[in-house]
Amino acid sequence: MQLLEQRIQKNGKVIGEDVLKVDTFLNHQVDPQLMQAIGQEFAHRFADEKVDRVLTVESSGIAPAVFTALALNVPLVFARKKKSLTLTDDNYQADVYSFTKQETNHIIVDKRFIQPGERILLIDDFLANGQAVQGMLDIAKAAGTTVVGAGIVIEKTFQRGRTLLDDQQVRIEALARIKAFENGHVVFEPEA
Amino acid sequence: MQLLEQRIQKNGKVIGEDVLKVDTFLNHQVDPQLMQAIGQEFAHRFADEKVDRVLTVESSGIAPAVFTALALNVPLVFARKKKSLTLTDDNYQADVYSFTKQETNHIIVDKRFIQPGERILLIDDFLANGQAVQGMLDIAKAAGTTVVGAGIVIEKTFQRGRTLLDDQQVRIEALARIKAFENGHVVFEPEA
Repeated sequence: MQLLEQRIQKNGKVIGEDVLKVDTFLNHQVDPQLMQAIGQEFAHRFADEKVDRVLTVESSGIAPAVFTALALNVPLVFARKKKSLTLTDDNYQADVYSFTKQETNHIIVDKRFIQPGERILLIDDFLANGQAVQGMLDIAKAAGTTVVGAGIVIEKTFQRGRTLLDDQQVRIEALARIKAFENGHVVFEPEA
Repeated sequence: MQLLEQRIQKNGKVIGEDVLKVDTFLNHQVDPQLMQAIGQEFAHRFADEKVDRVLTVESSGIAPAVFTALALNVPLVFARKKKSLTLTDDNYQADVYSFTKQETNHIIVDKRFIQPGERILLIDDFLANGQAVQGMLDIAKAAGTTVVGAGIVIEKTFQRGRTLLDDQQVRIEALARIKAFENGHVVFEPEA
């Protein structure tokens, strides 16, 4: 998605070997026009998939996901992050390990909001090591749903997330695919 | 806002004396059409205020706030919640006490995203005791900005938030104003 790649080149900040800071337009300050365009693009790519619900994880997934859900005319559900859990029968839960923070968090979705047999589209801001998407997949599977794919705003193709999801035959649509950081600059994969 | 009041009557769940659960359309599952209508309504009410940025707090504020920012054609900034803080010069911070959870959290906004002299519109999902809005006000004041008002999706007028904000001459626009819960039912204030 050219608009997004241009924005990353203009406003993204490379930190160290593998971190891209996009807090000027995606995950602290948010550009609503860009989020709308992103949502419409995801909706377009998954238009034939008869999506019943969009699922994301708080907080950075919410803005792109709510515009995707709007364009698809379906509800959005955002999984809640919790440090610790008290097990109940009302929720689906999954562990999400953060390589950045080196800690395990949990994500939780109320059983009322993900029903057996539904077709679920996952949305997230980043695909790096794939742990957040894997957590959503675990919940979607536990709920007896079909995951039609994962819409990712920014993928870092040099990390393990893509392989992890390919192994489970999950369709991925990533709007910006970063191959490498070279001397503080972003190098994109060629568009498919 | 009639559409919102109808939705609260239909899907809101009163719990105990003072809690309204709206997780079917606002803060766990999200109705994107309703959020769009809410954003357009806030933008309409604050249309003459020359808003520079919309400020909210993660996570439940993001969906209504991003549609408000879209309609006003300005950026959204969402404050991050933190359990603990390491003080730096890069951020504005404020304490937010939660009466429900009986704990103090912190909210944090990068100084790049709220600039002296700007006109800021605050958005949040609930106004109850007013602590989250007060935290945003503290940050906006520390940053040397002018707060043009607070757009609230659901206000519980029987709690202290309104008085707290009135005392500071903050304009409040609340789209649903709840006067009381009677026998598990919601009673609204008459529309102004």
